[in-house]
Amino acid sequence: MKLNFKNDYNTIGDIKLLNKLIEYSNEKNIGYGEDYHSKELNELVNRMVGLDTDTYVISGGTITNVIALNQILKYQYEAVITGENSHINVHETGALEATGHKIILTPLKNGKIDIDEIKNTYNKYVDNHMVMPKALYLSNANELGLTYTLDELKRISKICKELNLYFFIDGARLPIALVASDYSLKDIASLCDMFYIGGTKNGLPYGELLIIINDELKANFKYLLKNKLGMLAKGFVGAILFKEYLKDDYYLKLAKNNLVAANKLRDKLKKYLIYPNNTNQIFIKLKNEVVDKLNEYVEFEIWENLGDSKVVRLVTSYNTNNADIEDFFNVAKKWDYSTNEQKST
Amino acid sequence: MKLNFKNDYNTIGDIKLLNKLIEYSNEKNIGYGEDYHSKELNELVNRMVGLDTDTYVISGGTITNVIALNQILKYQYEAVITGENSHINVHETGALEATGHKIILTPLKNGKIDIDEIKNTYNKYVDNHMVMPKALYLSNANELGLTYTLDELKRISKICKELNLYFFIDGARLPIALVASDYSLKDIASLCDMFYIGGTKNGLPYGELLIIINDELKANFKYLLKNKLGMLAKGFVGAILFKEYLKDDYYLKLAKNNLVAANKLRDKLKKYLIYPNNTNQIFIKLKNEVVDKLNEYVEFEIWENLGDSKVVRLVTSYNTNNADIEDFFNVAKKWDYSTNEQKST
Amino acid sequence: MKLNFKNDYNTIGDIKLLNKLIEYSNEKNIGYGEDYHSKELNELVNRMVGLDTDTYVISGGTITNVIALNQILKYQYEAVITGENSHINVHETGALEATGHKIILTPLKNGKIDIDEIKNTYNKYVDNHMVMPKALYLSNANELGLTYTLDELKRISKICKELNLYFFIDGARLPIALVASDYSLKDIASLCDMFYIGGTKNGLPYGELLIIINDELKANFKYLLKNKLGMLAKGFVGAILFKEYLKDDYYLKLAKNNLVAANKLRDKLKKYLIYPNNTNQIFIKLKNEVVDKLNEYVEFEIWENLGDSKVVRLVTSYNTNNADIEDFFNVAKKWDYSTNEQKST
Amino acid sequence: MKLNFKNDYNTIGDIKLLNKLIEYSNEKNIGYGEDYHSKELNELVNRMVGLDTDTYVISGGTITNVIALNQILKYQYEAVITGENSHINVHETGALEATGHKIILTPLKNGKIDIDEIKNTYNKYVDNHMVMPKALYLSNANELGLTYTLDELKRISKICKELNLYFFIDGARLPIALVASDYSLKDIASLCDMFYIGGTKNGLPYGELLIIINDELKANFKYLLKNKLGMLAKGFVGAILFKEYLKDDYYLKLAKNNLVAANKLRDKLKKYLIYPNNTNQIFIKLKNEVVDKLNEYVEFEIWENLGDSKVVRLVTSYNTNNADIEDFFNVAKKWDYSTNEQKST
Repeated sequence: MKLNFKNDYNTIGDIKLLNKLIEYSNEKNIGYGEDYHSKELNELVNRMVGLDTDTYVISGGTITNVIALNQILKYQYEAVITGENSHINVHETGALEATGHKIILTPLKNGKIDIDEIKNTYNKYVDNHMVMPKALYLSNANELGLTYTLDELKRISKICKELNLYFFIDGARLPIALVASDYSLKDIASLCDMFYIGGTKNGLPYGELLIIINDELKANFKYLLKNKLGMLAKGFVGAILFKEYLKDDYYLKLAKNNLVAANKLRDKLKKYLIYPNNTNQIFIKLKNEVVDKLNEYVEFEIWENLGDSKVVRLVTSYNTNNADIEDFFNVAKKWDYSTNEQKST
Repeated sequence: MKLNFKNDYNTIGDIKLLNKLIEYSNEKNIGYGEDYHSKELNELVNRMVGLDTDTYVISGGTITNVIALNQILKYQYEAVITGENSHINVHETGALEATGHKIILTPLKNGKIDIDEIKNTYNKYVDNHMVMPKALYLSNANELGLTYTLDELKRISKICKELNLYFFIDGARLPIALVASDYSLKDIASLCDMFYIGGTKNGLPYGELLIIINDELKANFKYLLKNKLGMLAKGFVGAILFKEYLKDDYYLKLAKNNLVAANKLRDKLKKYLIYPNNTNQIFIKLKNEVVDKLNEYVEFEIWENLGDSKVVRLVTSYNTNNADIEDFFNVAKKWDYSTNEQKST
Repeated sequence: MKLNFKNDYNTIGDIKLLNKLIEYSNEKNIGYGEDYHSKELNELVNRMVGLDTDTYVISGGTITNVIALNQILKYQYEAVITGENSHINVHETGALEATGHKIILTPLKNGKIDIDEIKNTYNKYVDNHMVMPKALYLSNANELGLTYTLDELKRISKICKELNLYFFIDGARLPIALVASDYSLKDIASLCDMFYIGGTKNGLPYGELLIIINDELKANFKYLLKNKLGMLAKGFVGAILFKEYLKDDYYLKLAKNNLVAANKLRDKLKKYLIYPNNTNQIFIKLKNEVVDKLNEYVEFEIWENLGDSKVVRLVTSYNTNNADIEDFFNVAKKWDYSTNEQKST
Repeated sequence: MKLNFKNDYNTIGDIKLLNKLIEYSNEKNIGYGEDYHSKELNELVNRMVGLDTDTYVISGGTITNVIALNQILKYQYEAVITGENSHINVHETGALEATGHKIILTPLKNGKIDIDEIKNTYNKYVDNHMVMPKALYLSNANELGLTYTLDELKRISKICKELNLYFFIDGARLPIALVASDYSLKDIASLCDMFYIGGTKNGLPYGELLIIINDELKANFKYLLKNKLGMLAKGFVGAILFKEYLKDDYYLKLAKNNLVAANKLRDKLKKYLIYPNNTNQIFIKLKNEVVDKLNEYVEFEIWENLGDSKVVRLVTSYNTNNADIEDFFNVAKKWDYSTNEQKST
């Protein structure tokens, strides 16, 4: 099989986690998340963040974003502010709009939401001929692998409070953001109204754990979950997986392994880097010939076409190991030496 | 732990199927159902039904119903005909209406859609002040555990063709319907435009396999799947599970085990039966005192309150075994003997 | 031209009202209902009902129903209870469902909502797998021309309060209901949370006047009005019309003229009456041959086919006069004498 | 009363048109646009554009845009391309998104859609994780009063055909665009798939005339019209008004009167002009003090705040006459002479 650095959701999942499914395969449980595992998971999260939260396991990122934002946005004239490159705006096939809500774009700065512009954006919405901004969405780490600093998150949180915007964090890649940064899950929980801890992109076969912090946003969530297609009959499966995933910060261990691999790859590719970041997405610019050769041995994503060169995205995962990295450079060596132009880029 | 006859989705799943997740845990695959397992699954289904189909694994019943019907119903004035007791009408928290479509009710007869009334219902929709019927939905086995006969399905299929209605079968419990009836998967596929084979209620941790027969309904399905929140990043997980589930009709073996258990239970409860059917849902009428005592030992659903008695629903599963049945009657014996009134019901 | 008893919206409107458009044709006003006429209209309504209301002129019945119910129902799992024959269920082409909300049906009794059944209907909605009832809708007069008595409205109002259901009255034909009953506009306003006074069916070229009573339902209505397509740029036109329409109870004079005409017609058609009521819709059962002959001279609606006879609906209007009634019976005389069977029906 | 240059929908309408309502006030007609006036209107339009069209009068601009685009866009993953400043994107309170569809933004050039960028925008939508572009929307004249040239419209039309995009023109201000440009209604009809002729902003009390050119977009329109809240019971009212409005190009006469007034105003305000255009919206930049003084005598829109100055929008109408213009400059003279800074701007 080809080497695969295409994304961080290309294998079923971590064996220790999967074995829990075997262990509990025949245990009888109540359906729809009313089981004791779901309750224990909620208690575990509450201890971890030091708050009284509501928690729900939902199958994937897009559906979690849409349901969470629908819990926040009631009337269809209520809208969410986000950056142009955000997942809900670009890569969800209009799923949020399909539930009736508009997305308001606010300017970016170096790939992240420009904090200084949030208030300006908000202030443009002045009357009932325009939608009403009610929430701010960002992902952390975001689509370009960038993380917000603690200071940035605090500033955003403060602005949201001031403007009466609910602050929602898409945490599909929150685990690696936490290990790549200087803040904790507790910090995240203290700064926003709702967020989730991604599982799919960090070693689980499926699942994101939505955590509702703000009491105003808790009522009747399961009605919405069912109405918006996210309720799973065997809710206990996700709860069993997430309990093990969070226990003793195992999810951070998986993310750390990923980050170590990413950093090894990044270090050696330093001279080709474009869109630098501190997590597990490595964007490099390569001549077209090199891309073609590399592609014979390695699966990856073409991010952008730039005429005679391309931006290639390499992504490491919770289970990327030293051998994978070595294999990559054993292959890479070939084209690196054979392509003089590339070396001098 | 209490005996549990509450439903057929109260355990994670069949161990042989779950072990596939362990076996393939580290295999690298393309995301979003573009992997080779999804392709092989499709080929397997095509061989099984002798047709060129499109196949998609979706996480659960409600979301499959909604997405399937949204592929069929385009404009929001297009509606689906079904019976009052159908799952989409009663137990999906308005999920179909939330995508903009009305449900038209047609009369029932003995718990199933009254075939003689379909055309009458259709004919009431005469002009543009009313919705336009475009599909017929039924579940088989249905919510009361009833199955349609082959002859009935053929008659419905013919009426649908005549009226230009697409015929969609909710197969959340299709496996047990197949083993309880005299027709095959091939028959089902030959009579409708779209249907699914349930996994969640027959030994899989999650997943329904949607099968599109009619070529008119195939275009751009993945756009809809993502837009309507059903696309899973790790699509290959469901494909791996369903390949094993369908291989050598393993899914029918699981359903058969279930049916054998159900029949044992049913036979011994004959005198209490109400809403009789031929699958794995057993509705019995018991005095309130008996219900309370039984409930100390057994988990089940209260289906209906009838004053001094109740309708209790007992459901067997793919993994219900002889010991479970014996345990049940060991318990049941107690209340049966101690409650004279009950014995004479 | 043929005599026309097809409906009560078959002429542009009352000349006194239309002349107001000429009178004010060149007066400059602020758009979108922010003008002084809209304000004066609101003050007039407040005086009439003795309450502090919000008022909005919306173009027609269906759009008013949908917007009003969308102001009441926030989350898409919230639903409205009504009878099977109600306008929102039958004759709005699924417009309410197209905004995401399910309609719950409650049993009828003699063509009106069976008040004794409302609580039973409500009580069926027990958990998050079903929609959540939040409103009750009825029209008064309803589609069969029936009116609710004051006592009935009081009982419904009380039940709604008890069950936390918002009570919304479709008043497309409220003017004639008021003149045909023993209660006033003030009574209506005191018993419900929101209602409207129909204009289209009582002499206005277009327009229904939505009146919001309950303070909880007032916030941000104009956002919804625009979002749900009901905001008119020249809002002052409707306000000018409605001011004149309501002034000195002119709308009741129009309705009274209508009722007088209806009663004349009804009295003479007594022996053919079917679905009797006290307003301006007269349902008569006639042999098919008679229907055909009558149709040569008179426009009307065929309500139902009953084999060799038909139910015909005759509707009188604000401007139906004695000559119209006489002309009708001059024509009717012909077929009445020529059809012996009919006479003995 | 203050002078009023706030917008082009501040009076009820042209007296000749309104008198038609008086003339026909008592004529009996069939409802819902099935009347003979609606038919004659359609025939008139067909003669005017030399094509076989379908025509519908809808109450206002926003609702016409939303219904037209919903006729074009079927599945909710289908999206419309337009510029950032377009009415559907900015000033419709998210009404299009509320029907489930995303708006794709394409770059502007000098306030109009940059034709050279349309294909680039289209080409970014490459797979089923993104919405599918199916239509292009522009308004002509647009929100800044700018018109597209015939050559520009031809180029856009050609690109749309090439990319399989339906081309829809918002004609809320099409009448003045026609008199300000070198092309005819026939040209417009020959280049797009659907468009409308605005009435509200050119002398009618309400109403836009939607014209469907492309046969593929004609089926079942009335179902959608009702489902999306646009069907008027008294459809004949709009038809009567529009027949008179279009007869002998009366609508162009009204627009011409407007343009003459606009040009007079514009000529004398030349030195303050900002965002120049050729129709009836005049954007001028004035010192704050001047704006305040002017506002004592004249109603207008503040378009933008620029610190110590403001952009003021003056709009002329079908009924703006020489006296209005003279009155304006009699007032304007005062501040012009008293504010030296302003004179030298």
